Amino acid sequence: MAQDFSATTGKPIDCKAAIAWDSRKKLEVTTVTVDPPGPGEVRVKIVATALCHTDAYTLDGLDPEGLFPCILGHEAAGIVESVGEGVTSVKPGDHVIPCYQAYCGDCKFCKHPESNLCISVRAFTGKGVMKSDGKPRFHKDGKPIFHFMGTSTFAEYTVVHEQSVALIDPAAPLEKVCLLGCGVATGWGAVFNTAKVQPGSSVAVFGLGAVGLAVIEAAKRAGASRIIAVDINTSKFAAATEWGATECLNPRDYDKPIQQVIVEKTEWGCDYTFECIGNVQVMRAALECAHRGWGQSVIIGVAAAGQEVATRPFQLVTGRQWKGTAFGGYKSRVQVPELVKDYMAGATLLDKYITHEMKFDEINEAFDLLHSGKCLRTVLTF
Amino acid sequence: MAQDFSATTGKPIDCKAAIAWDSRKKLEVTTVTVDPPGPGEVRVKIVATALCHTDAYTLDGLDPEGLFPCILGHEAAGIVESVGEGVTSVKPGDHVIPCYQAYCGDCKFCKHPESNLCISVRAFTGKGVMKSDGKPRFHKDGKPIFHFMGTSTFAEYTVVHEQSVALIDPAAPLEKVCLLGCGVATGWGAVFNTAKVQPGSSVAVFGLGAVGLAVIEAAKRAGASRIIAVDINTSKFAAATEWGATECLNPRDYDKPIQQVIVEKTEWGCDYTFECIGNVQVMRAALECAHRGWGQSVIIGVAAAGQEVATRPFQLVTGRQWKGTAFGGYKSRVQVPELVKDYMAGATLLDKYITHEMKFDEINEAFDLLHSGKCLRTVLTF
Ligand SMILES: NC(=O)c1ccc[n+]([C@@H]2O[C@H](COP(=O)([O-])OP(=O)(O)OC[C@H]3O[C@@H](n4cnc5c(N)ncnc54)[C@H](O)[C@@H]3O)[C@@H](O)[C@H]2O)c1
Ligand SMILES: NC(=O)c1ccc[n+]([C@@H]2O[C@H](COP(=O)([O-])OP(=O)(O)OC[C@H]3O[C@@H](n4cnc5c(N)ncnc54)[C@H](O)[C@@H]3O)[C@@H](O)[C@H]2O)c1
Ligand SMILES: [Zn+2]
Ligand SMILES: [Zn+2]
Ligand SMILES: [Zn+2]
Ligand SMILES: [Zn+2]
Repeated sequence: MAQDFSATTGKPIDCKAAIAWDSRKKLEVTTVTVDPPGPGEVRVKIVATALCHTDAYTLDGLDPEGLFPCILGHEAAGIVESVGEGVTSVKPGDHVIPCYQAYCGDCKFCKHPESNLCISVRAFTGKGVMKSDGKPRFHKDGKPIFHFMGTSTFAEYTVVHEQSVALIDPAAPLEKVCLLGCGVATGWGAVFNTAKVQPGSSVAVFGLGAVGLAVIEAAKRAGASRIIAVDINTSKFAAATEWGATECLNPRDYDKPIQQVIVEKTEWGCDYTFECIGNVQVMRAALECAHRGWGQSVIIGVAAAGQEVATRPFQLVTGRQWKGTAFGGYKSRVQVPELVKDYMAGATLLDKYITHEMKFDEINEAFDLLHSGKCLRTVLTF
Repeated sequence: MAQDFSATTGKPIDCKAAIAWDSRKKLEVTTVTVDPPGPGEVRVKIVATALCHTDAYTLDGLDPEGLFPCILGHEAAGIVESVGEGVTSVKPGDHVIPCYQAYCGDCKFCKHPESNLCISVRAFTGKGVMKSDGKPRFHKDGKPIFHFMGTSTFAEYTVVHEQSVALIDPAAPLEKVCLLGCGVATGWGAVFNTAKVQPGSSVAVFGLGAVGLAVIEAAKRAGASRIIAVDINTSKFAAATEWGATECLNPRDYDKPIQQVIVEKTEWGCDYTFECIGNVQVMRAALECAHRGWGQSVIIGVAAAGQEVATRPFQLVTGRQWKGTAFGGYKSRVQVPELVKDYMAGATLLDKYITHEMKFDEINEAFDLLHSGKCLRTVLTF
């Protein structure tokens, strides 16, 4: 059932989108004009998009570099509608996942085996525009609307750089694999790429949202024998246990710091610890309960602007390592298609992260749900 | 010319030592009584001892856990005079280097390939006593004198745990290889074991004392192609260049933070950075000029008690790694003998770190020199 996109090729498309006119305002679901893709660009028809905390973070005005008005959204899947001049890696009808972490294959970072921090389009996506002409492709009544994270998936059609589209198996259900665009992939990659968790090891996971659960899932798959799950919301413990945690701790149940509790329970700390919240105090706790001598602590959570992590240098001198991860270290265009394959092979728990499904028009309710702590991921379809 | 120690075996020895009666007091060079070694202990005749900053740090009262009166010293070499019950790895006449970082081969840390933080005698050396009876082996007029770091090499004879003596080639000059007991070995190991510096990589070294120079020496041997040496004392630059630095920077020559200067000079930072000072601000600078995506920063310097390191978590999320090292990660009893072999093979610059030689009685002058910033290492002989 290949779609025929020839009618819109080369022309602006008027379609539905959720515009964030300013921080701390509800999104307006309205019609937006989406220009045809410029050179090196791809116009994608978004089929499903989930919400992630980074969208809420920017909408709440916590990112001092957030640009408004803009179209948010970065965890999605869709179909290529048309491509701009010179685009060779995808064609109309291809199924794709837009990737906020681009991959050009050519820059210093793409060429390095241990990094996924491609810089090919970074300067432009950071400014909410496209590289070919420094302008956005979205307009509303003649007014330009900025892009967000190089993806802007809260729109029926979006334009992204070729470096930001991962070509995936057309048989994959887009309303499921959209989650691979951010949080779940990040948690998996933090385990497999950043920490490289070894069989038989011990792991502590702070924060049991989708990211923390994805860490648990991957740690179990990597063969960790002990997985300690930590959250202040005990309603998260059932899922954590189902996903693979071997014990669950609520820091509020103890009158000493959680790192001390974990060091005592494990004798010297855990081989790997992961912060999946964005709280600098918890980042410190996670480091300080990494195993003396070799424990690694990985920061995944995004802290509020201006906040700093701190510890006594003795913690590092006695062998703990502090790391972080962006998109789990996955080289997006190369590896997201492999993650889709794993999903299709039934090797993942991906479906279980989707706790809510809504229509795109209900996006403001979906944001309320995100803030409520009651959902893992809400997927919106058009 | 094997020495005959049979006359003293099993008896207390009265010999020369430098007693630290209290913090912020000059050492008293006087006679001390050294008990025979207890079970699992080794009495060593110290032939040469150097001074290191950790001795000065404790003497200056900066270590809140420092115990007085004590006998300081931990960078030395000597000859086994007698051994206690059950000691099998060394015998009288053997040449040894006392190691403050013990190695038992048996504990969780010794068995781990990536750690040298042996815990076999740690609880006792931390309290200035021996494991077999919880008492010190030093006395002065009947009063017990504490051990320091499990080594106490500022004495003609000292008693150490068997886990703390590395057996070395008897042909090695003790007044040179004594340096392998701490600073120089630490700098080398930070490069080879902790960071595992790769050929062709870029390195920044903060602080150009013996430790920083040892980092430069090892980085050059590891094949680093760019070595940036940083110090606020420009008189250190000549040695740094001789050792292998490709450029030298004085942070005071710039009106922006040194990390920014280095990031700009190198485009994205250095593959490896090392803090060899003990200054938490510089530790931060070193992290922040590690290469985006994969740069590692290793803390070697020991910060004042209570001080903390801090940075924005974004620095870690974008791929920098923060580590630290104790004794360069070398498993002491196993690897110090190999370092002596490297020295004997002419593969190191070890001799060049010895800028001053004095008699043991001049130890207080040697401390003044250490504080002056004019010496790398002073070696004292009896
Ligand atoms: N580094 C990356 O590339 C990347 C990618 C995706 C998401 N993230 C970040 O990961 C973090 C987690 O994302 P998510 O979608 O799972 O979020 P979430 O809000 O669904 O989950 C966070 C969990 O942390 C718990 N929590 C809050 N404070 C706590 C505390 N003090 N101690 C213990 N638990 C606490 C909450 O109860 C919640 O269960 C966010 O900061 C997000 O921005 C980073
Ligand atoms: N981790 C370990 O196992 C271990 C082992 C040995 C030594 N150390 C520590 O390593 C550190 C270095 O030892 P060392 O013997 O080489 O010391 P040192 O005093 O000889 O050298 C320190 C150098 O740092 C320079 N410096 C001071 N402040 C500076 C600043 N703000 N910016 C740039 N340079 C600055 C000084 O001018 C000096 O040249 C000490 O803190 C020591 O305690 C740690
Ligand atoms: Zn996200
Ligand atoms: Zn790239
Ligand atoms: Zn030392
Ligand atoms: Zn041990």
